[in-house]
Amino acid sequence: MDKRKIEVCYSPALYPHYENREAVVVVTDILRASSAIVTAFMNGVERIIPVGTLEEARGYKEKGYMVAAERDGIVRDFADFGNSPFNFTPERVQGKEIVYSTTNGTNAIHLASSGVQVLIGAYLNISAVAAHIRHMERDLLVLCAGWKNKFNLEDTLFAGALAGMVLEDEHFHTICDATRGAMDLYETARFDMMGYMEQVAQRHRLKKNNLDDVIGYCHRFDETGLIPVLKDQYLVLLQ
Amino acid sequence: MDKRKIEVCYSPALYPHYENREAVVVVTDILRASSAIVTAFMNGVERIIPVGTLEEARGYKEKGYMVAAERDGIVRDFADFGNSPFNFTPERVQGKEIVYSTTNGTNAIHLASSGVQVLIGAYLNISAVAAHIRHMERDLLVLCAGWKNKFNLEDTLFAGALAGMVLEDEHFHTICDATRGAMDLYETARFDMMGYMEQVAQRHRLKKNNLDDVIGYCHRFDETGLIPVLKDQYLVLLQ
Repeated sequence: MDKRKIEVCYSPALYPHYENREAVVVVTDILRASSAIVTAFMNGVERIIPVGTLEEARGYKEKGYMVAAERDGIVRDFADFGNSPFNFTPERVQGKEIVYSTTNGTNAIHLASSGVQVLIGAYLNISAVAAHIRHMERDLLVLCAGWKNKFNLEDTLFAGALAGMVLEDEHFHTICDATRGAMDLYETARFDMMGYMEQVAQRHRLKKNNLDDVIGYCHRFDETGLIPVLKDQYLVLLQ
Repeated sequence: MDKRKIEVCYSPALYPHYENREAVVVVTDILRASSAIVTAFMNGVERIIPVGTLEEARGYKEKGYMVAAERDGIVRDFADFGNSPFNFTPERVQGKEIVYSTTNGTNAIHLASSGVQVLIGAYLNISAVAAHIRHMERDLLVLCAGWKNKFNLEDTLFAGALAGMVLEDEHFHTICDATRGAMDLYETARFDMMGYMEQVAQRHRLKKNNLDDVIGYCHRFDETGLIPVLKDQYLVLLQ
């Protein structure tokens, strides 16, 4: 059998050039959407409705849903809480259906839905995601949510870490420069990840709003074996 | 005065998200368009007309122009020669006006024309380009031609090398993740550039057509102080 290929797409704006309907697509937005979503499932959320606009989020709130929504680090007045993983406590989310509003992440999730399966990947569940990919007989496309369609380092490093894990299986290969680049950047960063993160633009954006306390947590490996998967526009647990 | 900022755009498809009308834009397509264009000026070409489609190239040929045009490594039947820098010999180009057809490069050049100045950058003229940028009181945007709108490593490494040179001047700074990523990849590659290029996708595309003999040449530093600049849709020498 031909080897399955790995590609990394650095921005939703590049997705049309990488789209692969035969691939499992792993969407990542390390700071903070994908880390928050994985955390919510760790804490027992039933399902998550990812929405792109604040209008949609407000509409759900008016229908009685619990809503996480902020823009530029400010929790919106109608929302129950902001987008930090630390907000998704068991007390708040266990057994619930919640709405998560994220500019970069939601657009990426909707784009990715042309793939055979859409997973949410973070360091928190990276080994579980890698193992699942290795067991599927499919290509892997990692879609970085980026920052307003620009390249970002934190998602790229995660993509490099995941690609490296999957490539340990000889049934996979890559001829994708973006994958090589991500793997090489991860090699540069991995032995001092928090030092490396000092220079990353998103760290400075979060710090400005005192939201950078999540960075260490969002880079913890394998806190869970749970994998969120997209099903009919909802995120649920992969069974 | 505020510091001038440096950004790197990895693909023409991302350009709308990086566009900066206050910036000098350096377009690069290391393998091979920007290296070939710089070489043509080293060998005395008068001006170059960059065209995107083969139809345009053929139209110029019918009007009597000398035309360099190939696709996927095959010289087109109507063209005088292909796109390798080695084709632009003094015998062929000195004092001439020639047409250069390149899929990735031409689109990038036309996009970049919203900047205050559009330069063609390659390793062959990198120090001259860096010195010119440092003397301008403008931001720098490096636009990588990429490969069919995908990220490529060879253009990214050049962008990292150039950004590093310009950042030695304290009047410049960067908060751009793509610039940091390019600089870190260049640091990974620089001490064994030819070894690093072994894994790059474009090397394999060129090798398939026995066109990879140009790779060493296209990574030679500072063969010239000449800088091609876009003027009214033509490339001429920066005076």
